[in-house]
Formats: sequence, C-alpha cells, structure tokens
Amino acid sequence: MIIVMQAGASEAQIESVVKRVKQLGYDAHISKGEERTVIGCVGHADKSPLQQLAATPGVESVVPILKPWKLVGRQFKPESTVIDVDGELIGGDRIALMAGPCSVETEERTVEIARAVKAAGARFLRGGAFKPRTSPYAFQGLEREGLEILRAAKRETGLRIVTELLSVRDIELVCEYTDIIQIGARNCQNFALLKELGGTGKPVLFKRGMSTTLKEYLQAAEYIVAGGNPDVMLCERGIRTFEDSTRNTFDLNAVALLKQWSHLPMIADPSHGTGIWSLVAPMAAASVAAGADGLIIEVHTEPEQAWSDGQQSLRPDKFQALVEQCRRVAEAVGRSL
Amino acid sequence: MIIVMQAGASEAQIESVVKRVKQLGYDAHISKGEERTVIGCVGHADKSPLQQLAATPGVESVVPILKPWKLVGRQFKPESTVIDVDGELIGGDRIALMAGPCSVETEERTVEIARAVKAAGARFLRGGAFKPRTSPYAFQGLEREGLEILRAAKRETGLRIVTELLSVRDIELVCEYTDIIQIGARNCQNFALLKELGGTGKPVLFKRGMSTTLKEYLQAAEYIVAGGNPDVMLCERGIRTFEDSTRNTFDLNAVALLKQWSHLPMIADPSHGTGIWSLVAPMAAASVAAGADGLIIEVHTEPEQAWSDGQQSLRPDKFQALVEQCRRVAEAVGRSL
Amino acid sequence: MIIVMQAGASEAQIESVVKRVKQLGYDAHISKGEERTVIGCVGHADKSPLQQLAATPGVESVVPILKPWKLVGRQFKPESTVIDVDGELIGGDRIALMAGPCSVETEERTVEIARAVKAAGARFLRGGAFKPRTSPYAFQGLEREGLEILRAAKRETGLRIVTELLSVRDIELVCEYTDIIQIGARNCQNFALLKELGGTGKPVLFKRGMSTTLKEYLQAAEYIVAGGNPDVMLCERGIRTFEDSTRNTFDLNAVALLKQWSHLPMIADPSHGTGIWSLVAPMAAASVAAGADGLIIEVHTEPEQAWSDGQQSLRPDKFQALVEQCRRVAEAVGRSL
Amino acid sequence: MIIVMQAGASEAQIESVVKRVKQLGYDAHISKGEERTVIGCVGHADKSPLQQLAATPGVESVVPILKPWKLVGRQFKPESTVIDVDGELIGGDRIALMAGPCSVETEERTVEIARAVKAAGARFLRGGAFKPRTSPYAFQGLEREGLEILRAAKRETGLRIVTELLSVRDIELVCEYTDIIQIGARNCQNFALLKELGGTGKPVLFKRGMSTTLKEYLQAAEYIVAGGNPDVMLCERGIRTFEDSTRNTFDLNAVALLKQWSHLPMIADPSHGTGIWSLVAPMAAASVAAGADGLIIEVHTEPEQAWSDGQQSLRPDKFQALVEQCRRVAEAVGRSL
Repeated sequence: MIIVMQAGASEAQIESVVKRVKQLGYDAHISKGEERTVIGCVGHADKSPLQQLAATPGVESVVPILKPWKLVGRQFKPESTVIDVDGELIGGDRIALMAGPCSVETEERTVEIARAVKAAGARFLRGGAFKPRTSPYAFQGLEREGLEILRAAKRETGLRIVTELLSVRDIELVCEYTDIIQIGARNCQNFALLKELGGTGKPVLFKRGMSTTLKEYLQAAEYIVAGGNPDVMLCERGIRTFEDSTRNTFDLNAVALLKQWSHLPMIADPSHGTGIWSLVAPMAAASVAAGADGLIIEVHTEPEQAWSDGQQSLRPDKFQALVEQCRRVAEAVGRSL
Repeated sequence: MIIVMQAGASEAQIESVVKRVKQLGYDAHISKGEERTVIGCVGHADKSPLQQLAATPGVESVVPILKPWKLVGRQFKPESTVIDVDGELIGGDRIALMAGPCSVETEERTVEIARAVKAAGARFLRGGAFKPRTSPYAFQGLEREGLEILRAAKRETGLRIVTELLSVRDIELVCEYTDIIQIGARNCQNFALLKELGGTGKPVLFKRGMSTTLKEYLQAAEYIVAGGNPDVMLCERGIRTFEDSTRNTFDLNAVALLKQWSHLPMIADPSHGTGIWSLVAPMAAASVAAGADGLIIEVHTEPEQAWSDGQQSLRPDKFQALVEQCRRVAEAVGRSL
Repeated sequence: MIIVMQAGASEAQIESVVKRVKQLGYDAHISKGEERTVIGCVGHADKSPLQQLAATPGVESVVPILKPWKLVGRQFKPESTVIDVDGELIGGDRIALMAGPCSVETEERTVEIARAVKAAGARFLRGGAFKPRTSPYAFQGLEREGLEILRAAKRETGLRIVTELLSVRDIELVCEYTDIIQIGARNCQNFALLKELGGTGKPVLFKRGMSTTLKEYLQAAEYIVAGGNPDVMLCERGIRTFEDSTRNTFDLNAVALLKQWSHLPMIADPSHGTGIWSLVAPMAAASVAAGADGLIIEVHTEPEQAWSDGQQSLRPDKFQALVEQCRRVAEAVGRSL
Repeated sequence: MIIVMQAGASEAQIESVVKRVKQLGYDAHISKGEERTVIGCVGHADKSPLQQLAATPGVESVVPILKPWKLVGRQFKPESTVIDVDGELIGGDRIALMAGPCSVETEERTVEIARAVKAAGARFLRGGAFKPRTSPYAFQGLEREGLEILRAAKRETGLRIVTELLSVRDIELVCEYTDIIQIGARNCQNFALLKELGGTGKPVLFKRGMSTTLKEYLQAAEYIVAGGNPDVMLCERGIRTFEDSTRNTFDLNAVALLKQWSHLPMIADPSHGTGIWSLVAPMAAASVAAGADGLIIEVHTEPEQAWSDGQQSLRPDKFQALVEQCRRVAEAVGRSL
C-alpha cells in the first residue's frame, strides 16, 4: 500500500499516520516530494487493514500495489491448470466444446439436441434445470425433472453434463446429477454460495458477473479455491455497458488477460456474450484466437420454439459450421479442437 | 409486444409468424409500412412467450410495449405504500433516518455509535453482522455474535435494527434479531434468496444491484412481493459506471423515476453511492430533494479505526450537521424529518 | 509518480529504471517490500514523461499521485470563481437560472418562451442556433438566422444569451451575438476547439462529455483557462451508462465533487441529465441541494410541437413551479435564487 | 415509429395523437390492446418529426422501428465496399495492415520504424503529427514538421500514410501529405468536422467514439458519406466501460455486427482497444477471426522511449510474430494477409 498525504498535510498528521501504520504491524517508508508526502507500507501480505487509514486527517488516498488474490494467480502456480472431468480434459491443448439448449425442455427434445451437438464434436452437454429469470412470471426451469432428463441424455450420448446451481439448498441434488456445476453471472459475488462449493469435489464453471471487474472476479474465484476446490473454470459471458445493439458486450480482452494473470482454464460463452445468433460463430472463432480453452454454445433444433434464449441459439447445421471454422482457427494458433 | 419483420421478409414468413402468434393465444394486428411489416400482439398479460419469435426466419426484432411488472407498480396500486416497522412508519411524510457502522464491531463501540445516531435523530440502527466482502481474506462479519450486539444496542437505545442477510441458510437466525432484513446489491438478482423472503413476514430493505437496470430491479422486487411479502423498500446505492473518482455513481434519477413507477418507499444510500465521506452530506440533501422517503448513512465514532468502509463513514458531529440540513431541505419540499 | 516493479524484477532492471528516472530529471526513492520494489519519483511538476516507463522491462505499472490539473483546481485558487456576465453574477450565493428552448425556432415562438422564462425568474435565455444532431438528416439549426432571433429575444426581455458553438469556423459569428458560449458534450474533448476559446474573452458554459471522467473533464477545462480565458463554468448534463430508462444518468456526485476540487462555478442540466420532463423538477431541486451554482432548463410553450427534445421540455407553468421549489431548497442550503 | 399510449389514455388523447400524426404526413394504424393502445406510423422514410409526440398528453413512449441510416447500410448497397488507396485495396479478401508509432517523433526514428513494419508485412504507416492529448501540458505533436517526416518515411519505404486530422483548420494541410485521413475517437461526433470531410476526396479511417453506440456510429459515418465521400473505413478501438484493468474494452461484437449492418470496411485497433502490449497479439488474431478487414497496430523500436503510448506499443520482433499468427488465422477464415 502507498498512502498519499494531502498537499497541505502537517508534520503532526504525517507522524500520526506513520505511527498507526507501525501499530498495524507494517514498516513505513517516507518519501517527501515538492508538493506531497507519500508513505510506503511494507510488511506481511494482507494489506487490507491499511485501507481504513483513508479516513485519517491529512490522508488523500490509499493506493494498493499488490494484486489482491493468491491461489488463483500465476505467481502462486505458474503452470496452467488442466481439469479432468471424468476423463475429458479442460485446459490443455485441446479446446473443450460444450453445447446444448438454454433450458432443459422435454426429454425427447433434449436427447435430440444432445445427439446433434455430439455429432458436431461437442464433449459436454449444457442445459439449465434451474433458471435465473428476470421476471418471477417467466419459466423457472424443470428442476429435478430437468436433472433426470439431463441424466437420460448423458446415458444416450455419453456427453458430460454442465448445469446451473442457483441455491445452497440444491447443492446435493445438483451434484448428484451433474459433472460440472455452473455458477451463473448473477451469482458471481454470491459469496455464501461460493463458500459452499469448496466441499463439493465437483469442477465448477464459474461465470463472470455482468459488472464484475477482473480483479473482483479473481477474488471471487479465490473463495472457491480457498474453500478447498481447485477445479475452477473461469468463463467470460459478456459485460454490461452502454451499448444496446448486442445483449452484452463480449469482453475478449478478459480472455487474454486472465490467461496471463491466472492458471485457471478460460471458457468463452459467445451466445450470452452477443445475444444474437448471427454473431455467435464469428465470436466463437475470435475467442479461440484470443486464447480461450473452451467454448460453451447454445444450440437448439428449433430455436423459434425454445422456452428461453431462442434468439441466440444456433441450429445444428450452423453449429457444425462453427465447429469446423473454430477447428481451423485452433490449428492456426497451435491448438486442436 | 410488437414484432418487427425484416425489410425483405416474404409473405410466407409473415403468415408463419402470425400463425405462431395465434397458436400462442394472442391476436395479431398487421401493419404494413413502405419498408417493413409490423405485427402487434394483443392478448393476456404475460407476453414473455412471444420473445422466442425473435429467432423465427424473417423477424428482425421483438419489442416489448408493456412494463414487465405488476404488483410493485402504481398502475396496480396508485397510493404510496407506508410500512410500519414496529411503530415507526416508512413511506409517509416523515423521512426515515437509518444510520450506524458498516460492520458491527465490539458491543461497546456499537452502543456508542447507536447512542450518537439516536441523539442526532436516527430512528433505525444499521450494522452488518454478515458482510459480503470482495476478498475471502477480508473480515467477514461477527455473524451470530454481531446479531447479539445489535440486540444489545436496541435494548440500550430503542432503535429499530436493519442488518444484512446473505444466505437462505441464515434466514431464521437473522429474522430472530432484526426488524428489517437488508438484501445487498450483490444479491439483487439472487432469485433463490428473494423467493424465500416472501414467507418471512419482515420488512425488506432491498438494494439495487450495481448494474441492475430499473426495469430489472422492479421485477426483482416483484419476486418478493409475489412471494407474499408486500413490505419492500427500494434502495438506490450507486451504480457501476466508467467514472472512477467516486466509488459508485449515485443515480438519483432512479429515486425520482421509481417514485413515479412504483408505490414502494424509496431509500437513498449516499454513503455507498459516493464512497467518499465529504460527499455524503450534499448527496443526502440532494436525495431528500429528489423525493427519497429515507436515508441510510454510515456513521462511526472513529472512522480511521473502522473495520470496513471507514473512508465513507461520518463522525457524529458531521452526521448531526447532515441531519439538520436534510431537515431544512425536507421542509422545503413539504416533508419532515 | 510511483513506479511499481514486477514481483520477479531483477536488480539490473531496477537500476535501469532508476537511471532512466534520473535522466528525465527526477529523484528516485527506492522502497523494497517483501514481494516488490516500488520507486517514488520526485521532482518538477510535470510527471507525464515518466509514463513511458510503463513499457520498460521489469515494470508492472506507473501510478500517478498528483492531480493532473493546475489552474482550475482549488489548490491553485482556493476561493470560488464568480463570473460577471454583463452584470449578472454566476458562482456567488445566488443561483443562476438559464432556460429556454432546445433549438431556436421562429422569432415569435422564441420571444414567447423568453418572456415566459423571464416571468418565472430566469436571467439567461438558452437556445441552439447550431445543433449537433445524431443524424445528418435531422434539423441542424437555423444558424445565423437563429442568432438574429436570439438577439431579438434579448432586446425584448433583457435576458443574457447562452448558445452553442460547434466549429472553430463560427467563433467570430457566435461571439458577436452571444453572452455565453456553450460547448456541448460531444465537443468536451475537441481540443482544437477548446484551444481557440482562450482568445474569445467570452464566458464559456462547458459541458461534460457523456463518457468523460471528472479527471479528464478538469484537464479539458484547463485547456480553456490555460489558453487565457478564466471565465469557465462547468456543467453536468448526464453521463452514459447501462441504464436505459433515462436518456442519461445524471451524475450529481460530480456536482458535489467538482465543487471541492475546482473553484469554477458548477451548472446542472437536469433536462439532458434525465431526458424525461417529469424528472426535471425533482432533479433540479436535487442539484441545488447538492451545491450547484446554476441550472439550465429546457422550456417550451408547446413541447409536443418542439423541433427537438420536446420530451424533456417543461411548459411555463411547470417551470414556474420548479423555480419556486428550487428557491425554497436554495434557502434551505443557505443560498438564494 | 410506434407510438405507445399510456394505460389510461383517453379516446380524446388518442384521437389528438392520430390527428397530429396525419398532419405530419404519415398514416396512423391503431391497434387497441387490453391495456394499451398502440399507433403505428407509416409513410415516408424520415420518421424523426414523430419523436416530438413523446411530449403529447397520453403518450407513454415513441419507439423507432427502422434503422436510422441509409447510405452506409447493406440494404442500400449489399456488396462490401473495397477502397483503393493509391493501388492498395482495403475491404477485399486481403487484410490491410497498418502499423507505426503513436506519435511521429524524429525523422530517423520514424524511418527506422517504417522500415521495420514494412519488413514485417505492413502496407500502411500510421503516426500522429497532431495529437489529441488529455492534458494541455502533454506533447501535442510535431504538426507540419511531423507531416514532413511522414512524407520522408513514405519516400523511403513506399508505405501509404495514415495520420490524424483534429481541426477543420488543418484539412488542406493534412490532405496534402496523407493518403488516409484518420478521425479519432474524440471527434466521432464532431459533426462540424465530419461535414467537411465530404469534399476532401481522401479515404477516411473513422474511429468509433469511446461511448458511441453502433447506431450512433453509423449515423456519424453517414455524415461523411452523405457529404460526398464514400471511402469510409470504420474502426473499433475500444469503448469505455467499468472495467479498469484494460485501458478500454475492445468490443469485437462491433466488428462482427457492423460487417452485417454495413458494407464499409471494418478495421480493428487492438493497441488502443486493450492499452497493454501483451494483449495486442491475441486481440489482433481475434479481430481477424471476427471478420475485420484490417488491423492498425502501434509499433515502436524502443517503446520505453516513446513520446506517447509506449505501454501499448510492440517491438518489431513481437509485431513480426503477430503478423505471422494473424496470417495463419486469416487463412483459417478464408482470407489472406
């Protein structure tokens, strides 16, 4: 931490801050400039107690210097994490492909979609049984029945299952059925939920919140890892900005930067990231080029009949074309799909 | 809903959309312009099934016309809601004043602050026993011990208690101690939590999320009211924007607009809304002028020793001055404090 | 400036940075923490040459410490600036009231509106003769004819004139007619235009850009003052955020914070700040409570016939009510209107 | 346009709106729902006069249906525009590569960089002689001397020149030296400048503003094309959002969506889009995958000595590697570089 004193701070104020820094257990390095005095605080890793000094008379600001995460960072673990989901690897050279409907609908429909995405090359089936919906009057998901349908689709196709968990009350239930727990954007800073993921032993697909900064996002991921679960995949799914021609602003900078800051695998969700089906294929290709370790794509055999998110779902033939183009781009950047 | 067809949409495409609209149970009114055909969908109140038509060939966009909430809107209930919290009214002519520390710290400190804010005119004591913290390594709150301290402070001062609930697991515990349940910004769209608030019978101080639009916010409040709990207070606490000189951008437009759209009381939180103690008093006065029904303010007897949020906390003397100015502004707009 | 070295930076890298800092003419204070070395740079006021060091091997970031403006700041000039516009003062105890149509339309209409706003208490007439319009096909303003109409309205009412300047080509023309030059949000960082305002000798109403941070905004104002024109009024008119229920997000934090950072008068524009006529009165009152030195309000005698911005314009009776309420709020905060 | 009436609008109000719609020269189609009446307005292409009806009693909102641009859209001209810059084509199969320093510095340095980027495959040299700088005290560019240096670099290498124009006062001067006029983000809605570009006969590299929506951006481009200059290249350079770990949020959705909406070539600027040199190569590859027709990249032979933007400039060897990877990605998506 660097403590910047106000331009007119008195000697007594400076001394008082230095004294308090030392009381908190840090060394204080004083640097007097022409206009301002700056105090560098050196000591043990947790600098958060120093933030309260922002309210001390004479202090202008308290500026953090160190990155505020540990276990999820490349400084702690330089090599990339590879997660083994029942034999399918995520985070290595091969790009992981997850696809399926937004919501689980009927068993017939779900199996039909599962077969189609498998045929195109997907190794994971996505589909929501618990749906976070803006309106209380919108379809909220089939819940347990939806999980049963996902199990049936897995039995038919062998695809691993990715499905969303909304509440701590459903942890055991969802873990019984899924291979990967999805945590959605609206729960990115639901710390009560994150704390309980540590004990599940299941890999987590952890989506960035729609207004979560990358620094906050890695600290949120740190909750899960510090809780005992190292198998976390980060996922960019678009952020909220002023632009309203797309559903979200798909922030591919995040993919490239998080690959540098963190060893965790990075999944891209161009379906939510754009919200418009015709943009999904170009943004999937761009995600692979930017360094994503996996893609999660909404696919539906009849998007105009979908119970949710039809406008951003691809038909199987378009998904097939997307996979082929992404495979070529993956090879261009030294990976496979 | 209005369905806008693409410029070159064929007759067959238009007919197919009209047929589907009717299958879903709505009437379709067709309006052919020079360049485009527009289909107005008329029928029962829930228009959400029509959104899936955005994925139909020939459709350019699906535009909602009606506001997507019901119970929380002034069309449903024109008169303003007044909530009775154990004899103290919120939502009437008198502006409700809530104040206290960010986190509950020691009993001695908490009682000291409670007495100070009561002396200045506050009728509610705020203080967090469960704290949502960005970092897993930051202080997470005293939990049950914190609730006990709040109870002691209430015994000493008679102030009603406002404290945050983070997890469905703690609902019974928190309800046992608090007069008002606070739901924080990060849980504004934690629908699993909102659904369970319906059955608590406790008033809810429901904060807007940092990137929640006003339309989403009212739909989230609708989850609580539709769940059986009409005693919801809305609360503007700042939104996330590009501006980084303040912690958040305090959106006072929201106070004025939500008072027009909804009958629920509207509380303003200028402490989080600005994040800078020297801005809290002017923004509190501005909130009252804009029509807020209450204020929630962070106050601490020694902000530079606070366990969290010291930089935005006011000392009691500054809080006293704030109250006096807000009282004059309240009278200027025909209210009391 | 503080230069933060990367965690693994070598001694040679640190030495190389220190050497370069000294070559650029600053002193370097080295502070070695457990994980990182930090270099404080002390010397003459312009620290911008140090920013290039961000690209040096071993450097993680370069953090500015001093505020990047000078003439417009309270450190340079602690007392508030009062601008004399032909006898009418802006920036003192009395709040300045500017009102009028968005665009100048016919002379008859303009004089009618001018009389109405004067009767309600306005001392300045606003109206655009040059209009910045999103579409090239929208009405672009009456230009010289509009300026003539404004002159006629001034002759009839004695109101001082505020009108927008869009291009350096029109500086002489606009200065011939107006009392205050308005620079609109889209030109907030049009530095070529700002540089030429220094020599005009006319007060400038300088609007914040829709995505200009407060730090950038004051530096932009510094262009005008450093160019030789000290008579600059700042103006908050709403920023662009994700919220789409209002035209802009009216950032009243900016009013309060800029009053602390800068000595320049601060005008609030709730008409553009909200974009909705029914929000203009509460937000005008809130602006006064937050410390604004003036208000600029769109008024039209028949908003539904206005050539632009009708949806945010007030009728004279509503404007009259706004003025009365703002007068009471002004008195509540120790000012007059 | 669709005019949505308020829930309780009277018959008289509806009739009055319909009458006004007809006065303005449109047909009105009335559609009465259970709760609301909606009026569809059909007629000639310019619907902007209808917007004023938002202020009419009984009207809730006025919703545009048509896209508000014409000449720059694919409906007007379905085939992609290819611009011939003195023999080098932009907008065809081959991706255009523009590179060079942020600011033009010395002739020696500029020629050195020009040779390096040419050797790596660039066909255009970028470099600013007029620099838009946040602070009036920062380096403002070498102006005419900088243009002379660019001419010398062109003479040495044959590269076409791209350089920024800031003011209408410099149009003739800049046109004398440059092959492509660059308009920067801060001037994206400087309509006075855009209007004068129509007569220059020079291709324009027209950057998106940092908070310009895509709909506004295309209307701004329409100013140039409607003014008589069809040779406009669009350019995504990052938008301003809450995320502060990158200088801007590089919005690749914009590249993909603008390619669908408009026939104009689309250039990507990952240097400004990210602001961090280590992200430039992955984001350049992503841009090509998303469908960009060109790249503009900041390159410097000694970034830590650069007069501006050193932190986002690549050294020639890193630029060379970027080009090679982008070439492979271009081939993967059926193009060349």
